[in-house]
Amino acid sequence: MKDMQQIVSLAKRRGFIFQSSEIYGGLSSCWDYGPYGIELKRNLKNKWWQAMTFRSDIVGVDASIFMHPQVWKASGHVDGFNDPMVDCKACKSRFREDKIDTSAPCQNCGAEGEFTEPRDFNLMFKTKMGPVEDSSADVYLRPETAQGIFVNFLNVQSTMRKKLPFGIAQIGKAFRNEITPGNFIFRTREFEQMEMQYFVKPGEQMKAMEDWKELRWNWHISNGIRPENLRWHPHVGDELAHYADAAEDIEYKFPHGWDEMEGIHSRTDFDLRKHEEFSGKNLKYTDVQDGNKKYLPYVLETSVGCDRALLAILCDAFRIENEGDKENERTVMKFHPSLAPIKVAVLPLTKKLNEQATALFHDLQKEFKAEYDVAGSIGKRYRRQDEIGTPMCVTFDFDSLEDNAVTVRDRDTMNQERVAIDQLKNYLRDRIYI
Amino acid sequence: MKDMQQIVSLAKRRGFIFQSSEIYGGLSSCWDYGPYGIELKRNLKNKWWQAMTFRSDIVGVDASIFMHPQVWKASGHVDGFNDPMVDCKACKSRFREDKIDTSAPCQNCGAEGEFTEPRDFNLMFKTKMGPVEDSSADVYLRPETAQGIFVNFLNVQSTMRKKLPFGIAQIGKAFRNEITPGNFIFRTREFEQMEMQYFVKPGEQMKAMEDWKELRWNWHISNGIRPENLRWHPHVGDELAHYADAAEDIEYKFPHGWDEMEGIHSRTDFDLRKHEEFSGKNLKYTDVQDGNKKYLPYVLETSVGCDRALLAILCDAFRIENEGDKENERTVMKFHPSLAPIKVAVLPLTKKLNEQATALFHDLQKEFKAEYDVAGSIGKRYRRQDEIGTPMCVTFDFDSLEDNAVTVRDRDTMNQERVAIDQLKNYLRDRIYI
Repeated sequence: MKDMQQIVSLAKRRGFIFQSSEIYGGLSSCWDYGPYGIELKRNLKNKWWQAMTFRSDIVGVDASIFMHPQVWKASGHVDGFNDPMVDCKACKSRFREDKIDTSAPCQNCGAEGEFTEPRDFNLMFKTKMGPVEDSSADVYLRPETAQGIFVNFLNVQSTMRKKLPFGIAQIGKAFRNEITPGNFIFRTREFEQMEMQYFVKPGEQMKAMEDWKELRWNWHISNGIRPENLRWHPHVGDELAHYADAAEDIEYKFPHGWDEMEGIHSRTDFDLRKHEEFSGKNLKYTDVQDGNKKYLPYVLETSVGCDRALLAILCDAFRIENEGDKENERTVMKFHPSLAPIKVAVLPLTKKLNEQATALFHDLQKEFKAEYDVAGSIGKRYRRQDEIGTPMCVTFDFDSLEDNAVTVRDRDTMNQERVAIDQLKNYLRDRIYI
Repeated sequence: MKDMQQIVSLAKRRGFIFQSSEIYGGLSSCWDYGPYGIELKRNLKNKWWQAMTFRSDIVGVDASIFMHPQVWKASGHVDGFNDPMVDCKACKSRFREDKIDTSAPCQNCGAEGEFTEPRDFNLMFKTKMGPVEDSSADVYLRPETAQGIFVNFLNVQSTMRKKLPFGIAQIGKAFRNEITPGNFIFRTREFEQMEMQYFVKPGEQMKAMEDWKELRWNWHISNGIRPENLRWHPHVGDELAHYADAAEDIEYKFPHGWDEMEGIHSRTDFDLRKHEEFSGKNLKYTDVQDGNKKYLPYVLETSVGCDRALLAILCDAFRIENEGDKENERTVMKFHPSLAPIKVAVLPLTKKLNEQATALFHDLQKEFKAEYDVAGSIGKRYRRQDEIGTPMCVTFDFDSLEDNAVTVRDRDTMNQERVAIDQLKNYLRDRIYI
């Protein structure tokens, strides 16, 4: 059985994820991606971007993190983006009132019945922009990327001459001053979102929701996530945000329990309407296909937490095989080849083969993200590549000098096959581009 | 002759760059990338990332924007990252004292000799992290990405088992509360850096500097920048930062004048030494190739402003041909094909050919970032593709139904060639992957 601590530990040991500013004792709830982590994350983001923007009906944007303060008035975040906070009167620790049992002892100091009344705590980070000290210069770090799409709706639609339905996709950082962050990279104060807002004619949002539900579910499956670890969580009753007419989350079975990874929400025209109201601009779409009717499109949003999706991928890929059997136990990250940080490792049997093996490595490196490793026994090198999830290991031995062939070892089956060097790239392509 | 205003105007009109929060009157000094802008930027960032991390001696990281406050004490930013600021006593406008003539009238209100004494203004954005109000929770938005590399040096070196010389690359946002931002995306308060810190044995930094100078210069040339618009600017005398033993900038001839685009700086062991001092951790490298000597590596930094490099590319690509000649004038963005947001546009002669042309488009789209356009005359569609810098336009006409060929029009020469459809992909590859 795996738990989060094993995953955190492997992520650090193998250069996936380090605690932010670790040499200073770390910065609570912030994490840095190491060399393999950033390659994994780049693969994931590129795959999402391709899935979105290689469609003719979706284009990308990249809005700045700083936005005009009125944006957050219009969106409701200044007045309503709060969590209920309580203090322990004894130790002054602060908690989200909806996440603890306030009739129980303080989980920090053990004092009983000593909590303040809950009060609103706004989750937006505030700072001051420009060389002035008065409040007119207050700006926020965006708490979601979605508004960067809504305020650009008109510019994008008109410059790209888009007709409904069409979507705008964006990947970017967002920031929330969470009262109680935690569970590794699941709930952090700085995180990355991959969001797409799909604009449709009012009335067509439920059809769009069904289509996108299917696409997004399948996308996670295409990342190698096992279906039994995914489920739908429809928002019902009070859960449904006031601006939404339907919402479902894709949940993943994390070590800490089922929890949200992606939301597919029908946001109606709430955001565009609010921005019309607060900006005084006309954001209506003119429907040339329907008698030049003017209306605000409805919005179907797909919003996935990039770090959460990555955590799900780490959790799903993490396996300990033959646990407890000292001879045969191995830890392996069974990443989908499209996501694996390193696609192929070249392992010369000994340093004496460096020259020829390096030449092969340089050739492979032109096409595949590759790694060269000559340190330690072959078994030890395989174990290292298993832990970083490299799908293919190529061993170059003394016979290779004679038969112009190498041994290719498969990460998942551990089967080894002798492959002619002039066939190697095709062999690898067949197993990596799947 | 081009000026910045023409470039800003094209960038907006064609969906490259919009003012942030434009519907709210804009947010000073912040800009949003539109659909073509983000594709251009992604191509640029991916090209940099490949140039860096497809080398065996460089790995990537992605550190969080929030870092432990002590990082900025150690780096000197808390105490020393200031610009000298003066106020106009009449209108209260604020200026960088080193950028204006304080013996001249205020450029805002015209009052004369009315400036305050200069005082230090710290350029870091500060905010509060966690649900507390006291000063212990003050954190900064990083003003540079470099420190995210230095604090991770030990974790990266040990988990990746790297031997000197090796480098760590990173792309990410940084934030500076500039007193006077300006010149479009040249000086903004939120910007993106592409930085690589190359760690070498002390004494080897000047050789590394020469190597990297050549590599970085050639990289900009490979992006299509004309050499006559690039020059070296060595830092001499007071210009040289106190921690550097050599520094040169690559400057580009922007419309506002020659200005810095990339810095190649020999930072000695200043940063690692400071982090040792402030964190109390031993950051020394053990040189197994030199009798297990322990020392702090020296650092050779290459740091390019992503938005500045992109601005240089926009400026360099922007051409008005046959200006003033109404018949033949055209505006064209001569992007290097590797950077062009759209590689190929499919333009059916009339809507009647939609079915067959769409099939061709979908086939090309599997490999190339492509666009389909059937609106307006062919001439008008060519002009649009010229302005977004699409290298190749494929026209599908009635003859195509007979001869299974299309007309391919080259953006730069405007030459047209008839190409068999079954040869089209190879024809495009030869002209796009250069």
